[in-house]
Amino acid sequence: MARVVVDVMLKPEILDPQGRAVEGSLRRLGLTGVTGVRQGKQFIIDLAGVVEGERLELLETLAAELLSNPVIEDYKLRVIEDQV
Amino acid sequence: MARVVVDVMLKPEILDPQGRAVEGSLRRLGLTGVTGVRQGKQFIIDLAGVVEGERLELLETLAAELLSNPVIEDYKLRVIEDQV
Repeated sequence: MARVVVDVMLKPEILDPQGRAVEGSLRRLGLTGVTGVRQGKQFIIDLAGVVEGERLELLETLAAELLSNPVIEDYKLRVIEDQV
Repeated sequence: MARVVVDVMLKPEILDPQGRAVEGSLRRLGLTGVTGVRQGKQFIIDLAGVVEGERLELLETLAAELLSNPVIEDYKLRVIEDQV
């Protein structure tokens, strides 16, 4: 079993109104020193077998084109092997 | 500078229709062996200074009550110090 975690975040140059709203709320609720908040998505994909070779390449393609929007978002993919 | 990352995910017993939809799409696009997909949220909070003591406690409270819905979601908070 393997687990693949894909974090999707708006590119730094794209405005993030959700993150801004959260930032305002954190400040109002007493958190000091906040310099920025970004809100993104996280996908946890559980898979049978090992993730390598063509299967890993396909996952990278799917993360770049299905799970994220390459025009406005960046993604990070990490594989955790031997995950039950 | 510190960075706090909060991952928010639906509790395992709560149905995740978004994750299900993504799972179906991954399969249709040729990914084999998928046993489950969950979709959650990720917040990246940048802060001046050090995150410890009361400030860390406040962040835990805010993650549990503002960033996540404790009825249906779990959260994980991690602090990355010395992040620019």
